[in-house]
Amino acid sequence: MGIEEITGRVARDLEHLKQFTATPGDGCTRLPFTKEARDAVNFLTETMKEAGLTVHEDAAGNVIGVLEGEDTQAPCVMMGSHYDSVINGGDFDGIAGVVCGIEVARQLKENGIKPKRNFVVVGFCDEEGMRFGTGYFGSGAMLGNRDVEYCKHYKDTDGISIYDAMKGYGLDPEKIQDAKWPEGSIGQFLEAHIEQGPVLDAENIELGLVDCIVGIQRYMVTVHGRADHAGTTPMDMRLDAVDAATKVISKIADWAREKADGTVATTGYINTVPGGMNIVAEKVEFTVDIRSSKNENINDIANRIRAALDREVKAMGGSYEIDTKLVITPVALSEEMLQIMEDDCKERGYSYKRMPSGAGHDALEIGQVIPTVMLFVPSKEGRSHCPVEFTKYSDFAKATVIMTGLAEKLLTR
Amino acid sequence: MGIEEITGRVARDLEHLKQFTATPGDGCTRLPFTKEARDAVNFLTETMKEAGLTVHEDAAGNVIGVLEGEDTQAPCVMMGSHYDSVINGGDFDGIAGVVCGIEVARQLKENGIKPKRNFVVVGFCDEEGMRFGTGYFGSGAMLGNRDVEYCKHYKDTDGISIYDAMKGYGLDPEKIQDAKWPEGSIGQFLEAHIEQGPVLDAENIELGLVDCIVGIQRYMVTVHGRADHAGTTPMDMRLDAVDAATKVISKIADWAREKADGTVATTGYINTVPGGMNIVAEKVEFTVDIRSSKNENINDIANRIRAALDREVKAMGGSYEIDTKLVITPVALSEEMLQIMEDDCKERGYSYKRMPSGAGHDALEIGQVIPTVMLFVPSKEGRSHCPVEFTKYSDFAKATVIMTGLAEKLLTR
Repeated sequence: MGIEEITGRVARDLEHLKQFTATPGDGCTRLPFTKEARDAVNFLTETMKEAGLTVHEDAAGNVIGVLEGEDTQAPCVMMGSHYDSVINGGDFDGIAGVVCGIEVARQLKENGIKPKRNFVVVGFCDEEGMRFGTGYFGSGAMLGNRDVEYCKHYKDTDGISIYDAMKGYGLDPEKIQDAKWPEGSIGQFLEAHIEQGPVLDAENIELGLVDCIVGIQRYMVTVHGRADHAGTTPMDMRLDAVDAATKVISKIADWAREKADGTVATTGYINTVPGGMNIVAEKVEFTVDIRSSKNENINDIANRIRAALDREVKAMGGSYEIDTKLVITPVALSEEMLQIMEDDCKERGYSYKRMPSGAGHDALEIGQVIPTVMLFVPSKEGRSHCPVEFTKYSDFAKATVIMTGLAEKLLTR
Repeated sequence: MGIEEITGRVARDLEHLKQFTATPGDGCTRLPFTKEARDAVNFLTETMKEAGLTVHEDAAGNVIGVLEGEDTQAPCVMMGSHYDSVINGGDFDGIAGVVCGIEVARQLKENGIKPKRNFVVVGFCDEEGMRFGTGYFGSGAMLGNRDVEYCKHYKDTDGISIYDAMKGYGLDPEKIQDAKWPEGSIGQFLEAHIEQGPVLDAENIELGLVDCIVGIQRYMVTVHGRADHAGTTPMDMRLDAVDAATKVISKIADWAREKADGTVATTGYINTVPGGMNIVAEKVEFTVDIRSSKNENINDIANRIRAALDREVKAMGGSYEIDTKLVITPVALSEEMLQIMEDDCKERGYSYKRMPSGAGHDALEIGQVIPTVMLFVPSKEGRSHCPVEFTKYSDFAKATVIMTGLAEKLLTR
């Protein structure tokens, strides 16, 4: 099958899926357990069936298509991504990886492969966590990490719990643990995804071989000073929370730059209380998001922040506290599978680059326990989670060719 | 008259005025052109009459009591402050200066002074500007700086203009310019006021001789970067507005400290857009408030901020703009009157300190054109514009003794 024909099939599926959005004309809004999600799952089901897969929806809302191998009990090769989106997101984040999985199944059949094990394509439910403030719902459930209590606990902004949303959608949340796959039943996991960053596009490279999903530490820092009149309070009698906090924040990006190895650190949110232009701030809240493929880099920057807070807050005379929001250690992806893909890229003359994934993905959840690999395709100008998100269909096609090659090797050995 | 008796009279008046608040039990809320304002003006009118003054309300809502001198056409000595408050403010800011003015009139009579010129006590309307986002309304009108257009232009949060509020209060806004005093008719202006800062209380000093009302420059700075994913965008491909902005903000307080002459500089407000913890900020807005008795210090810090923004924003690759919100040059108060008060403090053994006023006052508006002096009394822990605002009544009493001495000298020479 030529690359043009593959490009056409991928384009056809993705163009069709664009219509399943709650915000037509303003990007893709496909939240979990909604009409748009149901419409997408129905289309994926039909498309999987046309590709020759046996399809079912599991208890977590994942749509699963199976291309049976000789030994249906042997650990399968699984490929997939998520079908939900953020609000006013793009038409590729997630769903393109599901479409690529179906396309790989098609090519496996067309190439006349006789798989020794099952090849399983999955469209995961609710990776983004946009509706309930969570994430990795479908992939987590597949690993047995979601239960009824979890479904009852998390609610959307209308107060509807995952539990109730599932019932309204036609799923039985009491059976959520039925979505779990037995230990050892998944042999490898493969995910194709848009990069969501600017690197491949800027360097004009076709494919990113993801060797690592970065670790993340996320903090909310609160610096306590004292509210005083900005005109009548001498400098030496102030507890200026802005002065202390910005003396720390202003160094964070530089500490990441000094690592010079892809480590990133970001303060995206600062809030001043009371926030009057003529009042010394009594409180500053700010966020810190640190990511690196090396956990020691993350810890080092977090430690520097704590030390700087100690120093500046002591100099001010106030206090501070740190609320840890997230700690994820880096996940190394399968070197064996990366090597297979790298060799294939070289042979076919596809340009590629080894790179970390700076964002989380279903592969992050699954990669904790199962040998996993990801393939990135370029995002135009790095834009993602917005309507202008764009990737060339031919880049997806090349990704499917490389992933088909990998799946062939895994399924026939 | 002994200091205990004076203390008693000041206490009696201020305790009575405490009831004229829209927020009983939660501080003083006495906005202009409201029932509370009317009640306070009625009480001040009665109290002025009892003190032997001839009282009227002018076209701007100022309440004016006159103790006639030999030559009623000669430039008068005026003393006063404002009777309005902020929302949930204290029981002393403003109104105590009106009560002190009435008390000075009483003492002038009791001391048997025969004034050559009029002594005029004024309760100014709407100094705080809390209701309409303005300020210095009554004192400005007295100088001829308020007109009908001004009254129609400014509105409160309910959309009621000063114009309409005045009509509902029983004033005719069409006659606002009748409140103007003829040029040369005010010889000197005296104002007693709480410090609203921590200096006198911390140093245990009874009276602050205000030799200057500081100049103010106020800016809103906007730094433009670019929104990017905090995980997938390498450090060298970011336009991080928080990084650039905090590299400037973190230096502002230090530049004021280095002046070591009472110069203050404050960033009280920072806003990050979009403000997501995993999104590089595309925009940071922050305020700068710089005050000093030396205008060159204010200009120097403003210039350093511009230079730092040039440098950091260039390094980032974004842009910035500065919106000038306020430029007021410092006002030097009358050295002659300060010297009279200083000599009197020494003679009476009152502890005092020469100091600038870091906040604006009616004396700032009037001091632009008329020889003016202010006397500060201590604010407990520097707290003001809040219900716990507190000054000892005996401190007010001492202020009236010093101001009576000054008024005597001015009225009899």
